[in-house]
Amino acid sequence: MSGVSAPDSAARSREIVATMLATDAFSRWLGITLVSVQPGHCVLAMRIREDMVNGFGVSHGGIVFSFADSAMAFACNSGEFVTVAVDNQIAYPAAILVHDTLTATAGEDASSGRLGFYRVTVCNQHDVVVALFRGSVYRTRTPRASAPTHE
Amino acid sequence: MSGVSAPDSAARSREIVATMLATDAFSRWLGITLVSVQPGHCVLAMRIREDMVNGFGVSHGGIVFSFADSAMAFACNSGEFVTVAVDNQIAYPAAILVHDTLTATAGEDASSGRLGFYRVTVCNQHDVVVALFRGSVYRTRTPRASAPTHE
Amino acid sequence: MSGVSAPDSAARSREIVATMLATDAFSRWLGITLVSVQPGHCVLAMRIREDMVNGFGVSHGGIVFSFADSAMAFACNSGEFVTVAVDNQIAYPAAILVHDTLTATAGEDASSGRLGFYRVTVCNQHDVVVALFRGSVYRTRTPRASAPTHE
Amino acid sequence: MSGVSAPDSAARSREIVATMLATDAFSRWLGITLVSVQPGHCVLAMRIREDMVNGFGVSHGGIVFSFADSAMAFACNSGEFVTVAVDNQIAYPAAILVHDTLTATAGEDASSGRLGFYRVTVCNQHDVVVALFRGSVYRTRTPRASAPTHE
Repeated sequence: MSGVSAPDSAARSREIVATMLATDAFSRWLGITLVSVQPGHCVLAMRIREDMVNGFGVSHGGIVFSFADSAMAFACNSGEFVTVAVDNQIAYPAAILVHDTLTATAGEDASSGRLGFYRVTVCNQHDVVVALFRGSVYRTRTPRASAPTHE
Repeated sequence: MSGVSAPDSAARSREIVATMLATDAFSRWLGITLVSVQPGHCVLAMRIREDMVNGFGVSHGGIVFSFADSAMAFACNSGEFVTVAVDNQIAYPAAILVHDTLTATAGEDASSGRLGFYRVTVCNQHDVVVALFRGSVYRTRTPRASAPTHE
Repeated sequence: MSGVSAPDSAARSREIVATMLATDAFSRWLGITLVSVQPGHCVLAMRIREDMVNGFGVSHGGIVFSFADSAMAFACNSGEFVTVAVDNQIAYPAAILVHDTLTATAGEDASSGRLGFYRVTVCNQHDVVVALFRGSVYRTRTPRASAPTHE
Repeated sequence: MSGVSAPDSAARSREIVATMLATDAFSRWLGITLVSVQPGHCVLAMRIREDMVNGFGVSHGGIVFSFADSAMAFACNSGEFVTVAVDNQIAYPAAILVHDTLTATAGEDASSGRLGFYRVTVCNQHDVVVALFRGSVYRTRTPRASAPTHE
């Protein structure tokens, strides 16, 4: 990658992700903010509100999954074609409480043809790992602004 | 299981799940309704709203994950001690659109000591499978109404 | 699918899988035998030998994974193009002992464009579930007898 | 951890793992060699033989799974009680060929009560990532040399 194209692709990543986030109603409901983004990498932040808890009084598992899923989607969508999740896996090493502030760091572990393999680590404000997330993604041939398929 | 205890435990399951759902702020935001519940089994329904989409205009992956996760939590919490998720896995065979009506069917595939293994299948109004979810759960020694741990 | 093509595709599945198994050195080391096969579905059997145990004296986790993985590979490779695994997940509800006889039943849960989603259940001779396996597969454009890639 | 106990626990880890490997018939069939071990961490090596391929002429998926599974088992079994796998997940970013030399690096990502969360990365001789493996483990109350259960 040349010294010119790297900054350009980082700028293009930011542009794509800013558009994705602006039109992503659920990520906005979650209160997700963008900390940094570059091709294959993304850092997000959010805060747990009282309307995000489950019946045990801790954050619903779907909240941290959704947060990590957005981080992966933003990290893997830096090109001109839409990339979609094939499957995801999440483990929960520690409970997440109301008012916790979370940071999700997403990166690409490996890539193979039209498949990519991502990992997202979510920590709370005490740097305790609260979720370990991974996903396989599929690079479609669908240009941005069209509806993606698995073709 | 005797002919007396089976109805009793089904009634206790419904009572526990009704309490869990009533205090589960995020499941209520999702608009989840309870179709049926018995020990180790649960069926839920929900409808996708416009505030649940991602930047591609389809339902955010975290929405269907959260729906399936609630179904698993309600299916596995029929006893007097709190059961918590260890990890989960989800695959997305088909896109979910705004106004789709989803049904989640959760059941226990196997059980081993303090661990349980659950599967949730989510279908849309056309009976198309839109998510395949599974999870390992851990039966804590924490009585209901206390905060659970992995001890 | 017509009444003529269904038997034909079942015969072609058996032919493909017989060739795969004949050239699959590791499945043969495992002692895998083919019980039945049709497009998207496969049943295999094997017996646990003393050279398959781990340091705890029970069957090594990799043995039952390998068995289930072969069942999935045979179930998903019924067409003229090679299908490969993207990722797999396995849970172990019960220990597997030396001399146990296992049966793996593989089937397709859902399909989406070039992706497929499979599930394999492994039981022992007492019909106890000893492994729950699932996998996402990718249908390459590689004809049989060529080396597959993720393109 | 004091300056005395750290070397002691590393020595005890090596002793436990040496015993596990010596009695692990399948890991020995795989030709696994121990590169390094300490509590929560393990590095292994192995070489792909011709009897490890599948019907596509590449290494059977179960071989690299088994290799990673042994690495995780050795990394998490450094204490006086047996630790067993709850479930595992693996993705395959690149094909593994006959005569490839693999290195598996296992480490603990997080720990919570009686549960642990491990990650194993497997690379070939060209430092290409060929498998991404993770697992949840359960710390039983079973002393070493007894048969473990999920109680």
